[in-house]
Amino acid sequence: MTERANAGALKLVVSYDGAGFAGSQRQLGQRTVQEELERALSILAGDSGQRVPVVLAGRTDAGVHAAGQVASATDIRPDLAEARLVRAINAQLEPDCAVVSVERVDAKFHARFDAKWREYRFRIWSGAAQPLVRDRTWQRRGSLDLDTMSDAAARLIGRHDFASFAGGGEGMPWSPRQSTERGTIRTVMISEIRQLAPWWGYAPDGTLIEHRIVADGFLPRMVRNIAGALVSIGQGRQASEWIDALLEGRNRALAGETAPPQGLTLWRVGYENDSPDDGV
Amino acid sequence: MTERANAGALKLVVSYDGAGFAGSQRQLGQRTVQEELERALSILAGDSGQRVPVVLAGRTDAGVHAAGQVASATDIRPDLAEARLVRAINAQLEPDCAVVSVERVDAKFHARFDAKWREYRFRIWSGAAQPLVRDRTWQRRGSLDLDTMSDAAARLIGRHDFASFAGGGEGMPWSPRQSTERGTIRTVMISEIRQLAPWWGYAPDGTLIEHRIVADGFLPRMVRNIAGALVSIGQGRQASEWIDALLEGRNRALAGETAPPQGLTLWRVGYENDSPDDGV
Repeated sequence: MTERANAGALKLVVSYDGAGFAGSQRQLGQRTVQEELERALSILAGDSGQRVPVVLAGRTDAGVHAAGQVASATDIRPDLAEARLVRAINAQLEPDCAVVSVERVDAKFHARFDAKWREYRFRIWSGAAQPLVRDRTWQRRGSLDLDTMSDAAARLIGRHDFASFAGGGEGMPWSPRQSTERGTIRTVMISEIRQLAPWWGYAPDGTLIEHRIVADGFLPRMVRNIAGALVSIGQGRQASEWIDALLEGRNRALAGETAPPQGLTLWRVGYENDSPDDGV
Repeated sequence: MTERANAGALKLVVSYDGAGFAGSQRQLGQRTVQEELERALSILAGDSGQRVPVVLAGRTDAGVHAAGQVASATDIRPDLAEARLVRAINAQLEPDCAVVSVERVDAKFHARFDAKWREYRFRIWSGAAQPLVRDRTWQRRGSLDLDTMSDAAARLIGRHDFASFAGGGEGMPWSPRQSTERGTIRTVMISEIRQLAPWWGYAPDGTLIEHRIVADGFLPRMVRNIAGALVSIGQGRQASEWIDALLEGRNRALAGETAPPQGLTLWRVGYENDSPDDGV
């Protein structure tokens, strides 16, 4: 379709339950978010078998969720109104992945390169086992010291070398493709610990904790490695100053456990004129 | 074990994800909550193959969740402290069902007959598809009028004949075993509509609505049939006075759709001295 060359772009906000995906990025023989979106858009585009490429703003690992992942693609159906397009795309997707909204944007829009910041949230439940949120939290027995965790979280704010928090965990090692001229330096704008009200029921014995972090970019496994360190601090096994030592040390071997993926959600991606404080 | 005859009873608060169960009550050849709990307690009791009977306070259908279901059973392990007993039972359960707390109570305690009230919450998401809560809400496109729904919900408060809201829906018809001397009359203490903050992510386009209902007892499918009626009212297809007509009419055929089970959670069960306003 020749008109495609001059078509505008689509900015898609995408939500998914990470449990059924081998991650966000296309991988041979695996079910991924990118692949599912490309398949859905290709069907709607109606070109016999031609793949519509999709770019995702944030790379999420297997099991990691997204509430506000952003994807960019060529506008495959300029004839459909935005709300109609959302429904048409979702009709081609499985229930564990959905387009939340579609916006028509400039043809040069690139979901990844144009992103100014990404927000992730990691949730921890410390208390008795909770089946209703086993797929959405890291469940830990024993209590956590929120004040110390808050102090530790705040130490991550600013421009730092996050090498101690890059990679690790089971499966995929830190991929060299992730290296850029920035190396392992990133700027964290917000890093805070909050106690949330349990939303799944009457839960008097336990605490739901969220680490909210906003940065210009994240290294692989960075948020989960930070969550592991914050829990060690909350348990009193390390002091909050340990964060400074880890940032200083620039060595993954220094930090502790990688938290499991199901507690993590890619919350939102910000572009020019977006603020992480909107709609919080 | 002869000491069992004089043993006290256990009051267990139980939480489960309804998706994997054919309901709460034992049914031949089906996976049920009662069966799972009895199996776990029997293993801990250590009697060769003898079943430890468990009574549940509220009957939940297939797919309906529980945050604070209550079960009673003989104290099978007086040697274990309560916190230890919780962990020992949970070690025998699958991750979709867990004991939240155990309390040692009088041997005459009966989870069902001693219950003074039950609290259910039904959650509705009106907005774009949301994969992260597809198993916890009834998802509806289009907006709902909360004020009219609130007015309608309040009309359920008091002692009424709920025959119009009993039974129906796919599968199991209203069982005659559910009939008691009360017939279809129940007393509703609290019935209110609330808007909740979405807990799964940045979700600017849509509304999360909860119907909270507390009553001395519920008829089969009653909360889901009420949710179906409240949504019809919220959509403007019926006026809130329709609730009065349904209560008056005492005929299931008058009311509308039965809402699907995944939006419903048995929130809490109250006994002597418990108040539904505790911990809300």
